[in-house]
Amino acid sequence: MNSREYASRVQWQGSSWRLRVVEQRLADGKTVERGVIDHPGSVLIVPLAGEQVLMLSQYRLALDEWILELPAGTRERDEPWLACAQRELREETGYQASEWAELGHVWPAPGLTNEVMAVYLAQDLSPAPLPGDADEEIEVRPMALEELVGMALDGRLRDAKSVLGIVRTASWLSR
Amino acid sequence: MNSREYASRVQWQGSSWRLRVVEQRLADGKTVERGVIDHPGSVLIVPLAGEQVLMLSQYRLALDEWILELPAGTRERDEPWLACAQRELREETGYQASEWAELGHVWPAPGLTNEVMAVYLAQDLSPAPLPGDADEEIEVRPMALEELVGMALDGRLRDAKSVLGIVRTASWLSR
Repeated sequence: MNSREYASRVQWQGSSWRLRVVEQRLADGKTVERGVIDHPGSVLIVPLAGEQVLMLSQYRLALDEWILELPAGTRERDEPWLACAQRELREETGYQASEWAELGHVWPAPGLTNEVMAVYLAQDLSPAPLPGDADEEIEVRPMALEELVGMALDGRLRDAKSVLGIVRTASWLSR
Repeated sequence: MNSREYASRVQWQGSSWRLRVVEQRLADGKTVERGVIDHPGSVLIVPLAGEQVLMLSQYRLALDEWILELPAGTRERDEPWLACAQRELREETGYQASEWAELGHVWPAPGLTNEVMAVYLAQDLSPAPLPGDADEEIEVRPMALEELVGMALDGRLRDAKSVLGIVRTASWLSR
């Protein structure tokens, strides 16, 4: 139930998010069914070691494709945002960071989901692996920040959250 | 059915996208259920008039909130990408553009959906309104590109696709 008091029902409940179907009343009195993904939130991490960013090559089931992206992950129930980022960094890259800076909270896809994504720059890295999720296939790919900025701006970097993380990092470092 | 031959079923079919539930087999032989949003694709438009960008303030049902974002919209079945961008620009801002530049194709949320979003810079604007969708509530908000670049980088702009569109536009104009 939102501020406009639309009725809704849970159509599917997954392990991390659910589909809710909302009966939205329009100005002309008609109703339409709209799908909304209820999401617990997520984190995006830019792990920076000198001038190298630890990017991932990751298999994405929705695309049936390996894509180049920054480490990211879904928040567990009631997990604090920074703790989530610290856990995901260790699971996905095998590193921990002792310097963290927050680069904002963003909406990855507000037409589809209420997901909020917290963005972090992680520096001063040292090895501290945690076991990854059984359903994730990931390879770490260190790349130069400068090259990534070029790719983010000219279109070669196709993952939208990674474009955002890279340009905010470059801006933060130049302050 | 993807390249790994996972079984899947359609769990919900909406007017523009559907939820498919995939039985994913893990390396240890167990299976997990994963939700995937099948999406027809979308467009993002940066309408630039001189140094002003036509931003929108739009009510988003998933967030139950009005947010600041660039014009964007979902592709209709088999609609060419540029035609979709031209239609959405007229519906959402009331303007048409005679100069179009493509700024890449991106994935807004590859952990959730196979949605591909085509990004366009639209210039040389003139009035040419089309009726908007009945379920959309939108107000046009012209803003200076320079201010938007600052907001995209320092975290004030919270819509991820808009951050991407704004920084790619600034980069394209500076070439």
